[in-house]
Amino acid sequence: MTTQLPRPDLEADARVKAVFDDIRKTRGTDFINNMWRWLALDPGLLERTWTEVKEVVSTPSSIDPLTKEMIYIAVSVANNCTYCIHSHTAAARAKGMTGEQYGELLAIIGLAGKTNQLATALQVPVDDAFDASKPGQ
Amino acid sequence: MTTQLPRPDLEADARVKAVFDDIRKTRGTDFINNMWRWLALDPGLLERTWTEVKEVVSTPSSIDPLTKEMIYIAVSVANNCTYCIHSHTAAARAKGMTGEQYGELLAIIGLAGKTNQLATALQVPVDDAFDASKPGQ
Amino acid sequence: MTTQLPRPDLEADARVKAVFDDIRKTRGTDFINNMWRWLALDPGLLERTWTEVKEVVSTPSSIDPLTKEMIYIAVSVANNCTYCIHSHTAAARAKGMTGEQYGELLAIIGLAGKTNQLATALQVPVDDAFDASKPGQ
Amino acid sequence: MTTQLPRPDLEADARVKAVFDDIRKTRGTDFINNMWRWLALDPGLLERTWTEVKEVVSTPSSIDPLTKEMIYIAVSVANNCTYCIHSHTAAARAKGMTGEQYGELLAIIGLAGKTNQLATALQVPVDDAFDASKPGQ
Amino acid sequence: MTTQLPRPDLEADARVKAVFDDIRKTRGTDFINNMWRWLALDPGLLERTWTEVKEVVSTPSSIDPLTKEMIYIAVSVANNCTYCIHSHTAAARAKGMTGEQYGELLAIIGLAGKTNQLATALQVPVDDAFDASKPGQ
Amino acid sequence: MTTQLPRPDLEADARVKAVFDDIRKTRGTDFINNMWRWLALDPGLLERTWTEVKEVVSTPSSIDPLTKEMIYIAVSVANNCTYCIHSHTAAARAKGMTGEQYGELLAIIGLAGKTNQLATALQVPVDDAFDASKPGQ
Repeated sequence: MTTQLPRPDLEADARVKAVFDDIRKTRGTDFINNMWRWLALDPGLLERTWTEVKEVVSTPSSIDPLTKEMIYIAVSVANNCTYCIHSHTAAARAKGMTGEQYGELLAIIGLAGKTNQLATALQVPVDDAFDASKPGQ
Repeated sequence: MTTQLPRPDLEADARVKAVFDDIRKTRGTDFINNMWRWLALDPGLLERTWTEVKEVVSTPSSIDPLTKEMIYIAVSVANNCTYCIHSHTAAARAKGMTGEQYGELLAIIGLAGKTNQLATALQVPVDDAFDASKPGQ
Repeated sequence: MTTQLPRPDLEADARVKAVFDDIRKTRGTDFINNMWRWLALDPGLLERTWTEVKEVVSTPSSIDPLTKEMIYIAVSVANNCTYCIHSHTAAARAKGMTGEQYGELLAIIGLAGKTNQLATALQVPVDDAFDASKPGQ
Repeated sequence: MTTQLPRPDLEADARVKAVFDDIRKTRGTDFINNMWRWLALDPGLLERTWTEVKEVVSTPSSIDPLTKEMIYIAVSVANNCTYCIHSHTAAARAKGMTGEQYGELLAIIGLAGKTNQLATALQVPVDDAFDASKPGQ
Repeated sequence: MTTQLPRPDLEADARVKAVFDDIRKTRGTDFINNMWRWLALDPGLLERTWTEVKEVVSTPSSIDPLTKEMIYIAVSVANNCTYCIHSHTAAARAKGMTGEQYGELLAIIGLAGKTNQLATALQVPVDDAFDASKPGQ
Repeated sequence: MTTQLPRPDLEADARVKAVFDDIRKTRGTDFINNMWRWLALDPGLLERTWTEVKEVVSTPSSIDPLTKEMIYIAVSVANNCTYCIHSHTAAARAKGMTGEQYGELLAIIGLAGKTNQLATALQVPVDDAFDASKPGQ
């Protein structure tokens, strides 16, 4: 099911083709996953999204590539994005996530889901020690 | 604001005291943050939650302690738990998160929030390559 | 903080006054909590919402009044509605929720928060036995 | 679709077999639903989750078994967990939920979804009467 | 997959038939989409929901019909309601949403998803200028 | 409460100053709201976010400025972003949203919150007529 099928000739649009070419080059593969094919319905949206993904996820930085993918999985699970859970779990495995790490990632996500609900249900007041606007923090 | 204030004499309950003592010992500090003081309204819930936090977060494992905290922040943001965002951001800093890493963590969480919504809005079909139930995966 | 303050003379509007009078009569108290005072900015919205609350929550039915409030708390926690968590926790207490029941309610909400995330993270397929569209169910 | 298929020989792992045996014994059935088979990828996570479910859901307590399932459904709907909605709706029926009760449960969940959004949109201030940290509450 | 199939003879119930007849008349079509057929399990819930949809969505008002559908899509995406995303995207197209508008709607929803997470992660304090309870606003 | 206070001399950073200057110029006001001051902790994140907001929200397009703000409010409510609800409600008023329109916007958001939960609870199957991947659509 989907709300709109991509046109058959997506790369006939020069802006779409330029993004797809850059995805292929950056990732070193001919595979363009569905997310990009669907975003192509609006070339500006496609360009902005890819530029941001490339800058935030694909560029070496102070957080290592596997950790980035695990964080991405965590957000996607909490936001309940089926597509994103599948694509980033596959990406994390491609970047070396072991079965043991996957199990631990799940354990953290599950535990956070639990304590998030508990703190919210009780409306636990934030300790002064955790509030950057309080003197002395 | 809160839905229930903790009793003044929490540690008069032996089960609560045992958990608090273990928190102090495990973390090497006398500080018991509000989450535990609020959960003490149900000693069984307090015990189970602390046992799980200790096992999942405080025990050395295949995911390093700072990464665990960043994953915890990511889930807490997506689930919108004010208390948990504050407590785990403080914990991540205590475990060495730099300003640069914090900025990048925010960038990943924000980007995931965006692509989560886009994939959901378009109901993008999951690629066969990402689906473990498909032959060849 | 709020996005709009109620007008000082809310009950000068006949439709608002009629709803407030019915709330007072139905609940047997002069106290009109803020939710209704805020909804009064749109009398039609106020009327429709009160009519529905009265029919669904205040009318005796096959689910007892305390259980209704506990279900309302559960949804409000998962949806993270601060106001609703406070108002329905107070309502549940007024309808007899004991401290023991509150602790158990929290335990269920927390556990559900955890298993919800786990099932979503793993994209666990629904068993045929749980799917009403499958033959034999 | 799923992110990982269970190994074919799950019960070759002694820890997994012990949990599965306890599920069968506690529930009085040979049916092990998919949730447990998927969690078996991490025996520690499986053990902790089952222990908690057994203690919170399967043990007689101050909230009756059917009410527990209805609360579980409510959280699962608000958290949008497809698997959990199916499994707990089936469990509630098995514990005696009538068609009338199901309709009323849906009515409460739907109404809460509505008033949750309204209170959040208006940022309605919590009444002092609902705040346990206010004097006199 | 579904949690309950509609009975085959839905319109044998006079209350259900009355609602379905009004849907057909109001919309000028014989097509009754699944949402209404599923809600028919509780005629009161069906009646209340249709009455509200008719009043809020189908009646001419100060927000034009297409904008209403775009707002409905936005909420449904953020709440992750698969059915609602599909039905309201189809409705928006039927009311004239162009491809360009759809792309822009997606861009706004995606951007909001991002800035929502960022403001929440940082717990950015609300400016006095945005708070209606502050003097001078 | 916040997780990090902005440095006092934000505009000493040339990249931050350039963004703030562009915000002032684009909006025709000296007021820089907190969101931007907080994002300044990571100049790259600030630049990317502002560029996107400017392009998606501030540039004339096929969706009028007030409708954009109402869509933004709708997403922010469903995602429960306190800051964003306040800032975009203020922005919608500045762009001409009347009290009547605000009431109707709330009515749509509330109704969508309700029907979203109902469709999710029942797992209503998507009609073929709404699915763009089905033949004939």
